[in-house]
Amino acid sequence: MSKSSLPVLRLAKGAERRIKLGHLWIYSNEVDTAATPLRPFTPGQLVNVESHQGRPLGSAYLNPHSLICARLYSRQAHHPLDGDLLRRRLQHALSLREDLYPAAYYRACFAESDFIPGLVIDRFGDYLSVQISTAGLEHYKALLLQIVVDQFKPRGVILRNDAPIRELEQLPLYSEVVYGEIPEVVVVEENGARFNISLHHGQKTGWFYDHRDNRARLQQLCHGKRVLDVFSYLGAWGIEALLAGARELYSVDSSAPALAQLRANTIINQVETRAVEKSGDAFEVLQALVEEKQRFDIVIVDPPAFVKRRKDLAQGLHAYQRINHLALQLLAHQGLLVTASCSQHVEAAVLLGEVRQAAKHLPLRLQVIAQGHQAADHPVHPAMPETDYLKCFICRVIRE
Amino acid sequence: MSKSSLPVLRLAKGAERRIKLGHLWIYSNEVDTAATPLRPFTPGQLVNVESHQGRPLGSAYLNPHSLICARLYSRQAHHPLDGDLLRRRLQHALSLREDLYPAAYYRACFAESDFIPGLVIDRFGDYLSVQISTAGLEHYKALLLQIVVDQFKPRGVILRNDAPIRELEQLPLYSEVVYGEIPEVVVVEENGARFNISLHHGQKTGWFYDHRDNRARLQQLCHGKRVLDVFSYLGAWGIEALLAGARELYSVDSSAPALAQLRANTIINQVETRAVEKSGDAFEVLQALVEEKQRFDIVIVDPPAFVKRRKDLAQGLHAYQRINHLALQLLAHQGLLVTASCSQHVEAAVLLGEVRQAAKHLPLRLQVIAQGHQAADHPVHPAMPETDYLKCFICRVIRE
Repeated sequence: MSKSSLPVLRLAKGAERRIKLGHLWIYSNEVDTAATPLRPFTPGQLVNVESHQGRPLGSAYLNPHSLICARLYSRQAHHPLDGDLLRRRLQHALSLREDLYPAAYYRACFAESDFIPGLVIDRFGDYLSVQISTAGLEHYKALLLQIVVDQFKPRGVILRNDAPIRELEQLPLYSEVVYGEIPEVVVVEENGARFNISLHHGQKTGWFYDHRDNRARLQQLCHGKRVLDVFSYLGAWGIEALLAGARELYSVDSSAPALAQLRANTIINQVETRAVEKSGDAFEVLQALVEEKQRFDIVIVDPPAFVKRRKDLAQGLHAYQRINHLALQLLAHQGLLVTASCSQHVEAAVLLGEVRQAAKHLPLRLQVIAQGHQAADHPVHPAMPETDYLKCFICRVIRE
Repeated sequence: MSKSSLPVLRLAKGAERRIKLGHLWIYSNEVDTAATPLRPFTPGQLVNVESHQGRPLGSAYLNPHSLICARLYSRQAHHPLDGDLLRRRLQHALSLREDLYPAAYYRACFAESDFIPGLVIDRFGDYLSVQISTAGLEHYKALLLQIVVDQFKPRGVILRNDAPIRELEQLPLYSEVVYGEIPEVVVVEENGARFNISLHHGQKTGWFYDHRDNRARLQQLCHGKRVLDVFSYLGAWGIEALLAGARELYSVDSSAPALAQLRANTIINQVETRAVEKSGDAFEVLQALVEEKQRFDIVIVDPPAFVKRRKDLAQGLHAYQRINHLALQLLAHQGLLVTASCSQHVEAAVLLGEVRQAAKHLPLRLQVIAQGHQAADHPVHPAMPETDYLKCFICRVIRE
């Protein structure tokens, strides 16, 4: 490792505590700006982070315009963010996934949790969907992409730099094929099912691998069952359930194009005769199903994040409660509610509390038979609760 | 459902809140003892629980001598604790397990979580190990056993009423075969392995089914690995890992008889040539391994509860930190720490905090690649955090 001398970023008194426990973010109000003003720095500049007492805490890249003004990428002092470091980090990330999965369909790098703050890579066989979410890392884009191509040997790389989170970093939103070619349709394999997806137009990087284990668990429980999949998107939950023997699938989504893709995916998996789609607002469709006195053996409630920002918490929690209240009314005796939240701001116990509230005045009892999390290709950084975002409960309903 | 009139147990003002959310326990200091003194009641007597305002909350059985003086078994008023109710509850419990598991090896009833407070039944094929933990339910022992025998048609039932928790209820400790015969050796099947166990002399009911899913997950990660199993007991983790392809198993336990049984179980599973046992205090044995500079690919730390009572919390947490600190030092680059706690008083985030502290001054980084819980045959009651007791993390170690 070559050593160069990096400028100092001095923290305010006491601000080193979280960092010493392993956290990688430094907020702008945690910097001793009298000693080391942020203004002179440019996005991507590297700094040597020091405690107020001058003890070295590690090396970080900086963005003076962001609330999170610096992100540590190394615990070593004066450690350059160079090809060596990026290559080693990506090698560690890749070797985990290769140990975990027989085929090359996974999140290959999960940012802070793989010790490359700001970098997400989803792998779809020969194709990579890459997201850079920080101005600091954007500065290293060319080097990064070169190493990624070198390491993964892909046929195509798309940069999906169109996530709104980039606006917090004052970054432009764009999507661009930066290497090789990305076909209009790319195939994903998950839990025995195959899906046609679009890396150009799909949500986020194109697919949500994070629920893989939770879907696999549901596959063990769905034989012969009638399944309602709310917020179905491309049909991952529902089609995997059908392949595992579910009797019938009723998918609900507000996006007609998503449902059309879902239908195409039922055909690829030869389960189209057991699938019905309904386009519409999830709350309205479920209310109508309740009024029709429909009953399902399994209801899957995996909505987009209802709480995107902390200030939306109360309203978002109310939405979780309402949708779960509707879902519970549709469940048969001994039926299963699969309820999830990908909102970072909603803790597992809080989501479960909303489900409990939703059940409070209904003539049923609940048992939680499974507590699920994001899959192992989305590791959690033990000192960064922010990286532990996905919660999933399977609740059994007893009616008497 | 027959209706009889039960005497009233009146709660203190505000004490109904937790109950209304679904909790089943009433503490003696939550009773309006001026209106309904506890002293006249006898253990097992049934009461109609009412809020301070006289609103019915459900039916409970009582033990005036316990801190938890009443446990609700029904949300209905004046609901007798009779054969009908017990039969239906057990039927619901059994049907969940029959849906979940192909063979009859599971916890068949998990007390409050299956809405029969105080009753645990573990099933080992034709044999049942039953534990009654409350004086209230002890009163219904004869009826209960009759229904259990009727429903499960076992060849033998042992009452393992020797858990110290019974002393809180002023109950005697005893173990007794109450139906048929229980052979000296009973077989358990779990995740493809077979174990000889003793229902007469084993810990608790004889086996810990609760880690089944966590062990299955480890099986997916252990091919070719060198495994250290600390607090190995009968070898469940380690032998299942060997069957899944682990290269070598080093088991540590303070109990020489447990290790002798473990050895017998390695032979049954034809993995004895890859297994080594070491009898001794876990802390001392691990310290010696650290001094020998031993390295393992996987270290399993699944100790008995270090925090049995809330007042032991600080000391217990320190023990979790110490044992994980030793384990981390023994892990190779990209190795896995499997760390668990069955202490009800230790929350998941707290256990992870101890692991993080244990890693703080070591030259390594951690990624949490799995968060595990008790298996589905140990359901969680959503309003009773006390029923959600098992935590397990798989952490990957990166050394640089």
